[in-house]
Amino acid sequence: MIDIVRLKENFRAVREKSPLVHNITNYVAMNFSANALLAAGASPVMAHAAEEVEEMAQIAGALVINIGTLDAKWIESMIIAGKTKHKTGGITVLDPVGVGATTYRTKTAWRIIDECHPNIIRGNASEIMALMDAEIKSKGVDSSCSSTDALNSAKMLAERTGAVVVISGETDYITDGKRVETIKNGSHLMPLVTAMGCTASSMVGAFAAVNPSNLLEASLHAMALMGTAGEIAAKKSDGPGSLLTNFVDTLYNITEEQLAEIVRQ
Amino acid sequence: MIDIVRLKENFRAVREKSPLVHNITNYVAMNFSANALLAAGASPVMAHAAEEVEEMAQIAGALVINIGTLDAKWIESMIIAGKTKHKTGGITVLDPVGVGATTYRTKTAWRIIDECHPNIIRGNASEIMALMDAEIKSKGVDSSCSSTDALNSAKMLAERTGAVVVISGETDYITDGKRVETIKNGSHLMPLVTAMGCTASSMVGAFAAVNPSNLLEASLHAMALMGTAGEIAAKKSDGPGSLLTNFVDTLYNITEEQLAEIVRQ
Amino acid sequence: MIDIVRLKENFRAVREKSPLVHNITNYVAMNFSANALLAAGASPVMAHAAEEVEEMAQIAGALVINIGTLDAKWIESMIIAGKTKHKTGGITVLDPVGVGATTYRTKTAWRIIDECHPNIIRGNASEIMALMDAEIKSKGVDSSCSSTDALNSAKMLAERTGAVVVISGETDYITDGKRVETIKNGSHLMPLVTAMGCTASSMVGAFAAVNPSNLLEASLHAMALMGTAGEIAAKKSDGPGSLLTNFVDTLYNITEEQLAEIVRQ
Repeated sequence: MIDIVRLKENFRAVREKSPLVHNITNYVAMNFSANALLAAGASPVMAHAAEEVEEMAQIAGALVINIGTLDAKWIESMIIAGKTKHKTGGITVLDPVGVGATTYRTKTAWRIIDECHPNIIRGNASEIMALMDAEIKSKGVDSSCSSTDALNSAKMLAERTGAVVVISGETDYITDGKRVETIKNGSHLMPLVTAMGCTASSMVGAFAAVNPSNLLEASLHAMALMGTAGEIAAKKSDGPGSLLTNFVDTLYNITEEQLAEIVRQ
Repeated sequence: MIDIVRLKENFRAVREKSPLVHNITNYVAMNFSANALLAAGASPVMAHAAEEVEEMAQIAGALVINIGTLDAKWIESMIIAGKTKHKTGGITVLDPVGVGATTYRTKTAWRIIDECHPNIIRGNASEIMALMDAEIKSKGVDSSCSSTDALNSAKMLAERTGAVVVISGETDYITDGKRVETIKNGSHLMPLVTAMGCTASSMVGAFAAVNPSNLLEASLHAMALMGTAGEIAAKKSDGPGSLLTNFVDTLYNITEEQLAEIVRQ
Repeated sequence: MIDIVRLKENFRAVREKSPLVHNITNYVAMNFSANALLAAGASPVMAHAAEEVEEMAQIAGALVINIGTLDAKWIESMIIAGKTKHKTGGITVLDPVGVGATTYRTKTAWRIIDECHPNIIRGNASEIMALMDAEIKSKGVDSSCSSTDALNSAKMLAERTGAVVVISGETDYITDGKRVETIKNGSHLMPLVTAMGCTASSMVGAFAAVNPSNLLEASLHAMALMGTAGEIAAKKSDGPGSLLTNFVDTLYNITEEQLAEIVRQ
């Protein structure tokens, strides 16, 4: 069960502490994720050069590694940044975009897991299932399975990796392998805005940075904000174009009270 | 002449089949093109790593190669993906952004044509003319010629390459070298939204994926949707900023009946 | 003091001459900066391949180098383009994004200054101070100092480099080391739109391209347009999401008279 007082406290902490979130993310997501983080009160930085990611990872409150438009050079930087973060006791969120669609993505995601030990893994149902089951061939980067189907995979993945695992979907699941929390907010328009999932991963990074001792809770709170803001924004939107705009505005305007009132588990 | 029944059928097919469109496109266009494809019902994926484009090109319904922010590594991937697509009988759309502005772009576009044999080439008037006439120095990536001037070049290009050639402009021309179709929808605000042309190429990819046996028609239908949605969206817009948003919303909301009613040849 | 007649003349020149602005900029900024330039009347091109930047830099009215998402390959291209621009008497604007956050950024910015001799440097207060004072560790890419604090650094930087230096902030400062001009327009929402500063640098490039003999004035006029359009747009906006959209619309719609009336020094 979500602790409403803690939810409000932690959202306030994001706004007040403005944690630096270091994103090594895909080209499609960069602008939207940066705007969403800024609107929510966090401080985004995008940096991928092998020469600087070690230094950047150390000053950031959390690192978000997203393989959406991966290539060999970027993977090298992801690994350097992720290893640095792990060695220094920092927090890494992994977004395994499109895992299952190509062998390269699946291998890369597992390489990052094995070498960098991410603390949180967030994906859609296909991606989480594909991580645990090489037989599932995801159709590109969209989710063709429901998040409920993937819950068992998520629990197994959490147990195997020690990470908190988040599945985005109509119902969001957040699990450490034993406990399972849910968020039931959102809108059917949200998956039609590209990089909405990537942005959720970055938001998880922001909440984890201000709540590092409870990453299950941090992930839950981030997904609560995403779903709630998406739901409010969708009511004002004529389609996915205006949802993008209204979502950023809502992240900026939503009060702790609104968040607490609208969140559903 | 556009067959209205077929136009409606094929737009429905995009929405129902949600074809996977593999884009190796430029950094400027990625977010907008992905959002436009999603709003129209298609399923975009952006992937450029040499290690995965062969696999991705094979699962996608169409490949879109866009050289807007080309470099040596990306060209290598474009060639691998394009060759794979050609060898397996798949469909490739080429968007020769900025051809004529630099020698590198002109050479690269011809290299892709010669090695990958794209089935459809879409550009603005300058680009299509520059492809056929090395004497024309395009001023950057914007079009300084009218699309009518370029029609002869388009026909010659279609004959030389065997591709359907699409010229975007006040009037869009779609030709296979013999037949010429036109679309006269749109708005003067459309060229002021960056990557609107790139997005047209991606949309052509979506329509080609669901209508692979008639690529002239597929291109015509895609341009009909682009022009019609742009025209509807422009009426609600105060400038190119709101046009971007309204265009995505319109792609999501437009009915087959509206499309059929508003399209002009 | 701003010369209102000159301000109007030069804004008109941007719209009428539509200068080609060659941006080697970061992934986050590309789409927004291109849309802002188009809306203001300029003609953006994004190109970074080592093979073509020399040719592109020569046909462009100004080059904008932005190190926001730098890496070794891109730096190589920035240097080639910047040297070409300097050698041919063209104008280069440098945006030293995140200088001070990592050693790599600070070194790269100074390398570009030393090898390419940019004519204009635009940053936020932290970045300008960090350029002059290696002791200041900027917290990522956001500004944690006020622009007034940085004015002395800006003057010193201008004297040392010969460049016009622009500090964005609540008050914008524009100095050549001796004269200091200010712009006091804008909105507290502007820094919450990612790449707003990067876009200011691109806009400085557009104004410099049409007013190459007076770069202090060109920078002043660009910042006047940015601040004024931001201020008008913010009044219609519910948050940073709608500000992005309204800002682009305002750049398109603002009249010379509005600009002249609203600008504050």
